[in-house]
Amino acid sequence: MNNITEKLLQMISNWKEGFNGAYNIRENGQCAGRQSSPNIQIDSKDDGPGLVIHIKPGTQKETVYIPACVTHGDVDDLVYNDFYVGAGADVTIVAGCGVHNDSEEEARHNGIHRFFVEKGAHVLYQEKHIGTGTGAGVKRIDPVSDIYLSEDAIMEMDTTQIGGVDSTVRKTNAVLQARAKLIIHEHLMTNGHEKAKTDFSVDLNGEDCGIDLISRSVARDFSHQEYHSQINGNTRCTGHSECDAILVGNGTVNAAPELFAGHIDASLIHEAAIGKIAGEQILKLKTLGLTEQQAEEKIIEGFLKG
Amino acid sequence: MNNITEKLLQMISNWKEGFNGAYNIRENGQCAGRQSSPNIQIDSKDDGPGLVIHIKPGTQKETVYIPACVTHGDVDDLVYNDFYVGAGADVTIVAGCGVHNDSEEEARHNGIHRFFVEKGAHVLYQEKHIGTGTGAGVKRIDPVSDIYLSEDAIMEMDTTQIGGVDSTVRKTNAVLQARAKLIIHEHLMTNGHEKAKTDFSVDLNGEDCGIDLISRSVARDFSHQEYHSQINGNTRCTGHSECDAILVGNGTVNAAPELFAGHIDASLIHEAAIGKIAGEQILKLKTLGLTEQQAEEKIIEGFLKG
Repeated sequence: MNNITEKLLQMISNWKEGFNGAYNIRENGQCAGRQSSPNIQIDSKDDGPGLVIHIKPGTQKETVYIPACVTHGDVDDLVYNDFYVGAGADVTIVAGCGVHNDSEEEARHNGIHRFFVEKGAHVLYQEKHIGTGTGAGVKRIDPVSDIYLSEDAIMEMDTTQIGGVDSTVRKTNAVLQARAKLIIHEHLMTNGHEKAKTDFSVDLNGEDCGIDLISRSVARDFSHQEYHSQINGNTRCTGHSECDAILVGNGTVNAAPELFAGHIDASLIHEAAIGKIAGEQILKLKTLGLTEQQAEEKIIEGFLKG
Repeated sequence: MNNITEKLLQMISNWKEGFNGAYNIRENGQCAGRQSSPNIQIDSKDDGPGLVIHIKPGTQKETVYIPACVTHGDVDDLVYNDFYVGAGADVTIVAGCGVHNDSEEEARHNGIHRFFVEKGAHVLYQEKHIGTGTGAGVKRIDPVSDIYLSEDAIMEMDTTQIGGVDSTVRKTNAVLQARAKLIIHEHLMTNGHEKAKTDFSVDLNGEDCGIDLISRSVARDFSHQEYHSQINGNTRCTGHSECDAILVGNGTVNAAPELFAGHIDASLIHEAAIGKIAGEQILKLKTLGLTEQQAEEKIIEGFLKG
C-alpha cells in the first residue's frame, strides 16, 4: 500500500494504522489488504472485479471497511461489490473512496454496490468521497447503489462528498418490502468547475415501509449540481424527501424531485429550497466577532451536518 | 349558437343571455358571435384560425370573454389566440372551454394562447374547462399558454378543470422581465379513467421578478395525473411552487417539480404533498352530522378552493 493510499484512508475511513474489524482495501484496482472476521466473510468475485461479502445472521455491532483508492491518473477502476446481510444482523459498512491525481490523465473509480439486507437486519452505511492532487487530470467517482430491503430491514445511508471530485454521477436504487425503512442523508459540496449529479429511485412496495431522504448541498464557485429523485409509493407507505441547496459565488443547482402515488394509502411529501445564505445569518455571526468568510464557513458547516 | 353551447357557456363563463363586455364565442371551430369594445378590439387572424385581441394601454376594469365550445364528436378544433395587453391596462380575460360529446367519435379543443403583457399591466385570466355528454367518444382539451410579462406586469391565472374531460395536456410557458409577477392557481379534478398532464415552464429573467405557482388536484376513481414544473431562476428573483394532490379510490398522481437556480440571488422553494384525506378530518365532520360521503365532498371542495 502506498503513502497516498494511507493518507486517503485516514480521510475517508478512519484508518489508524489498521482497521478494527473485517476489511478490504482496494488500491488502483488491486487488493492491498484483506481480513475477514468470524461473522463477516469477504471473498473475491469469481466472475469479475469485486467482492462478495457475507454477514452472518444475528451479527451484532460489527464493522466492515471496504475503502477504495485511486492514487494516480490513467486509471479507470470498475468494481462490483455484493453485500449479503443476514437476518437480524446489526452492522456498519464503511465504504469511502479517495481519488488522488497529480497527472494530466483522468482518474476514475466506479463502484457498483448491491445490498441484500435480510429480514430485520440493520445496516449503517457510511460513505465519504474525496479528490486530492494537483494535476489537471479529471478526478471522477461514480457510485451505484442497488438496495434490497427485506421485511423489517433498516438501512441508514450517510454519504458525504467533501470536495476535489471534478465529476460525479451518483445513482441509488432501492426496493423496500413490508415495514422496511430507508434513511438517506446526503452531504455534497462542490467547488471550482466541479459537476455532481445525484439520482435516487425508490420503490415502496411493502406495506408500511418508508423512506426518509435528505439531501443537503453547497454549490460554490462555478460548480453545477443536478438532483433527481423518484419515490414510488406503490402501497400503504410513507415517503419524505427534502433537498436543500446553498449557492455561493456562481454555483448553480437543478433540483428535480419526483413523487409517484400509485396507492390511496401512499403518503408522500417533498420540500426543496435553494438560495444563498441569508444576510441576517452572516450579520449575526459577524457581531459575535467572526469575519464574513468565517461566518460563511460556519453556516455551511452547520448546514451540511444537519 | 346551439342549445348545448348556451348551457356550456353558463358553466364556463358566467353567460347570462349575453356578456357584459367585449367577447368572441367560438362554436365547433366557427365564430358564433363577436363584439369589440372601444378599448378592446377583437379581430380574426389573417394567417390561420384564431383571434388577435388588442387591449388599449390604460384600459381599466374591463373584461373580455373568449369561450370556446365543441358540441359534438368528430371535431378537432385548433385555434391560435394572441392577446396584446397595453401598458398600464387592468383587465380580466375569461377563457373557458366546454366540450360536449354524445357520439362515439373524439371531440377535441386545442387552444394556443399567447399573452404579450406590456409594462405595468395587470391581467386576471380565468379559465374553466368542462366535459359533458353521454357518448363513449373521448373529450379532450389541450391548452397551451405562452406568457410574456414586461417590466412590472402582473398576471394572475386561475384555471379550473371541473370534470368530464377524458384527456388533457396543459402547457404553460412564461418569461418574466424585471419586477413582473406571475401568480398561478390551478384546480384540477379527474374522475373515471381520465388523464390529466400539466406542464409549467417559467423563466425568471428580470431582476426581482417572481412566480407563485399553486396546483391543487384531486384524482378519483381510476384517473391519473402528471404534474411537471420547471422554474428557472436566472437572476435575482423569487420562485415558489406547491403541488398538493388528494387521492380518492384508485386515483394515481406523479408530481415532478423542478427548480433551477442559475444565480446566487435566485431564491426558490417548492413543497409537495400527496395522500388521501386524513381519517380525523372525516371523523370530525361526521360528528357534526355529515355522512362520510358528504364529509369527503366538503373537504375536497375546500381543498380545491384553497
